Amino acid sequence: MSRNFKLVIEYDGTRYCGWQRQADRPTIQAEIERVLALLTRQKIILKGSGRTDAGVHALGQTANFHADTRLSPQNFLNALNSLLPDDIVIRECHEMPAAFHARYDVVAKTYHYHIRNHPIPSVVDRRFSWHIQRSLNRDAMNQSLLCLIGTHDFKAFEGAGSPRAHTVRTIYRAEILDKGNGLLIFVITGDGFLRYMVRNIVGTLVIIGMEKWLPSDMERILLSQDRNLAGATAPAQGLFLMEVVYEREAAQDLGWPDSRSLTP
Amino acid sequence: MSRNFKLVIEYDGTRYCGWQRQADRPTIQAEIERVLALLTRQKIILKGSGRTDAGVHALGQTANFHADTRLSPQNFLNALNSLLPDDIVIRECHEMPAAFHARYDVVAKTYHYHIRNHPIPSVVDRRFSWHIQRSLNRDAMNQSLLCLIGTHDFKAFEGAGSPRAHTVRTIYRAEILDKGNGLLIFVITGDGFLRYMVRNIVGTLVIIGMEKWLPSDMERILLSQDRNLAGATAPAQGLFLMEVVYEREAAQDLGWPDSRSLTP
Repeated sequence: MSRNFKLVIEYDGTRYCGWQRQADRPTIQAEIERVLALLTRQKIILKGSGRTDAGVHALGQTANFHADTRLSPQNFLNALNSLLPDDIVIRECHEMPAAFHARYDVVAKTYHYHIRNHPIPSVVDRRFSWHIQRSLNRDAMNQSLLCLIGTHDFKAFEGAGSPRAHTVRTIYRAEILDKGNGLLIFVITGDGFLRYMVRNIVGTLVIIGMEKWLPSDMERILLSQDRNLAGATAPAQGLFLMEVVYEREAAQDLGWPDSRSLTP
Repeated sequence: MSRNFKLVIEYDGTRYCGWQRQADRPTIQAEIERVLALLTRQKIILKGSGRTDAGVHALGQTANFHADTRLSPQNFLNALNSLLPDDIVIRECHEMPAAFHARYDVVAKTYHYHIRNHPIPSVVDRRFSWHIQRSLNRDAMNQSLLCLIGTHDFKAFEGAGSPRAHTVRTIYRAEILDKGNGLLIFVITGDGFLRYMVRNIVGTLVIIGMEKWLPSDMERILLSQDRNLAGATAPAQGLFLMEVVYEREAAQDLGWPDSRSLTP
């Protein structure tokens, strides 16, 4: 009997060419599928909540797979963690209804982007943050982010060369948290993200933080729907996929507003 | 004219055989001395506040060197950071009186030891913490540490094979901080430390946290002066040299008690 399992996955993306399986290149999906095949002696297809790009990290990526097995979720959790390399860890494994799909059923995702804003780089965080020496204006950055909340066409922040038919997304939360010692964390939650969208927003945000552009330029760029106006794509190494939420109820338990009340 | 410079140094010790220069093996001291020789065209001897062992990290190691140079401290800071590998960063550079010596003048040092106490390992912290799956009793650990405060003979926690003539040290602070999400930080400040002393205390502390030994066993081991009674040496990767303090006044500004009031 085929059973459906959901995984919650943490990884250090430094040495991988992203999530998605590729011929002859190391990816997170391929690494986990390889170990699942060892455990089940079946060819297993892992369906991720979405791709993460080369060098991007995750604390809460999700994926599901179907397998004809007697192994329990706890068996999978322990066996996967003992066989996977030390830069990939399975945090949770749950058995799900047959219809659950890790991509189609997503309600919201949260990303964090770590900026080291200090004259001196951090050795410990060097693989997990973007180092910006020049002091960033936190207030200007937070002010510029307000225009992103709600439902908008984010075409201006979509990666060039990867166009989607539908570029409207809803953002529930977008803010900069100052964690002290020069660590700024950009937190963004939405119902979905275009390719490079978070990193293109961060690239723009940093120019505003440097006071080269005005906070109001974020909205001007958003409304222009023109990728050429936004800042450069921020480096992959600062980005973390933190959480993927599936039930609408769960999203509201986290204190997020109903998306309908936020549409302009 | 020879001038005396003090450096404050951050490093990821993962790929080094410790601080101290060794023939044909990568060390922090050798790496910085190599770059100082490039900058000054002189053979420079760097005097560290003390050694750190292979795999141990630092956020605030200190060292001094004499050089006949017109370079300013800011010149050294910038040039060193542009030439050093990305796992060593100079945080500060100051010109000091000729007599200043980074080892002889130490008043106090603070170490942190990071324990990941969670059923699932952390990918991001895997090179910077010791992963302990079994839940540790924080109260028992903190209780056991009280006996270390003050001036004692720490022979029981000295590394085997590296005996010192004088094994009496004064500890100003020793406690476990619970930072949430499974991160425990052991903080210890003292006037000096024997080789492996912090890691041997942590090895003992974890056995007490697992409730295999009693909190009172820490004092029993301390008083025994017998290394064979203490726990195994905790792994290097969780240990950080955080700060080296030089002026007695500075130590007191940080709220540390006068060591004399703590002698039994």
